[in-house]
Amino acid sequence: MTKISDSTVKRLSMYYRSLLEFEKRGYKIISSKDLAKTEELTPAQVRKDLSFFGNFGTRGLGYPVEELKERIAKILGLTRSWNVALVGVGNVGSALVSYKEFQKQGFNMKLLFDNDQRKINKSHKGIPVHDVTFLSKKLKENKIEMVILAVPAHAAQKVADLVVASGVKSILNFAPVQIKVPKDVVVRSVNMAMELEYLSFCQVNKGFLQSS
Amino acid sequence: MTKISDSTVKRLSMYYRSLLEFEKRGYKIISSKDLAKTEELTPAQVRKDLSFFGNFGTRGLGYPVEELKERIAKILGLTRSWNVALVGVGNVGSALVSYKEFQKQGFNMKLLFDNDQRKINKSHKGIPVHDVTFLSKKLKENKIEMVILAVPAHAAQKVADLVVASGVKSILNFAPVQIKVPKDVVVRSVNMAMELEYLSFCQVNKGFLQSS
Repeated sequence: MTKISDSTVKRLSMYYRSLLEFEKRGYKIISSKDLAKTEELTPAQVRKDLSFFGNFGTRGLGYPVEELKERIAKILGLTRSWNVALVGVGNVGSALVSYKEFQKQGFNMKLLFDNDQRKINKSHKGIPVHDVTFLSKKLKENKIEMVILAVPAHAAQKVADLVVASGVKSILNFAPVQIKVPKDVVVRSVNMAMELEYLSFCQVNKGFLQSS
Repeated sequence: MTKISDSTVKRLSMYYRSLLEFEKRGYKIISSKDLAKTEELTPAQVRKDLSFFGNFGTRGLGYPVEELKERIAKILGLTRSWNVALVGVGNVGSALVSYKEFQKQGFNMKLLFDNDQRKINKSHKGIPVHDVTFLSKKLKENKIEMVILAVPAHAAQKVADLVVASGVKSILNFAPVQIKVPKDVVVRSVNMAMELEYLSFCQVNKGFLQSS
């Protein structure tokens, strides 16, 4: 297997969702054209992405839906479940706790952390909220594998350092700041304002964006 | 100017944030190396991205912080403000209304929409909530330029169609579904579960991701 890019991983996630949909509608076999149409990509792009799985599908016949779905699930790590914790039960954190897609894909929100005494030692939507002071201890005890940071910008690096020190290798960061981690830790940052900036860029520079 | 890619736009947003920070700390001139260090990129990548602005910066001397910041702000459409509306005042929608970065970057949340009679005709965090039935009319009246969709998956396409029919060219979609729009409309989708899938992919396939 060759190395695959960030955007290929994103497309695999998209294919996976389309395949679930095709399966629900009773499809057994689909073509790269079917998948391309759903995702608004070219069939060539789809075939290239799926070639990552080696020689797969039958030329002229297409891909078996169930098998392809399962192969993608496996490579995305969706055939198992993951222990997830979230730090910062504010507006964004609270919305993430209610986000049903997480559970559906096997991301189990096990623990919440906050520094607000009014929230600590209570349950938030059925999940216990712990004092962030005990972050390292609790992450280790509960074998947490991924941490979602929904803390203010000024606190993000400090909390990330604690998370890394606890041995967690995956961080999803919602704080509007870049955080630094060692090479063996992966950080994925979501910045809603940057998403809007992409849209304002497109409005200001009509025609300057490469179609991908 | 040549066409620029999706990920270049994202890096411009990141540079913009770093430049604000450098400015706050009193820097007048920075090198591509300074910017690269902050963003964990190579100086060559930074220089390549900034070459988009034509011949800029002085070889061996670096880039003037304020001017570079203003050029990037202009190209990202941040030197003006934008009228934004949000549809779906649920958990995610509500968190987005409180998201301070939007206002800071000039994205003004003017209107909210919902189909829940208990929310309609009230104010949510100071912003009026309208009946989604009047979406088209209100979007036009208020010259809304960007719409954030925070509605359930099953409602997303229908609402998107109404938004497009109202002449809005930019949609930020939080519904976990692909929405289809005409070619002159830009949709940006944020799917939190897909972000976690990227992390699970990295854990399952250590070493298979291209470093970008």
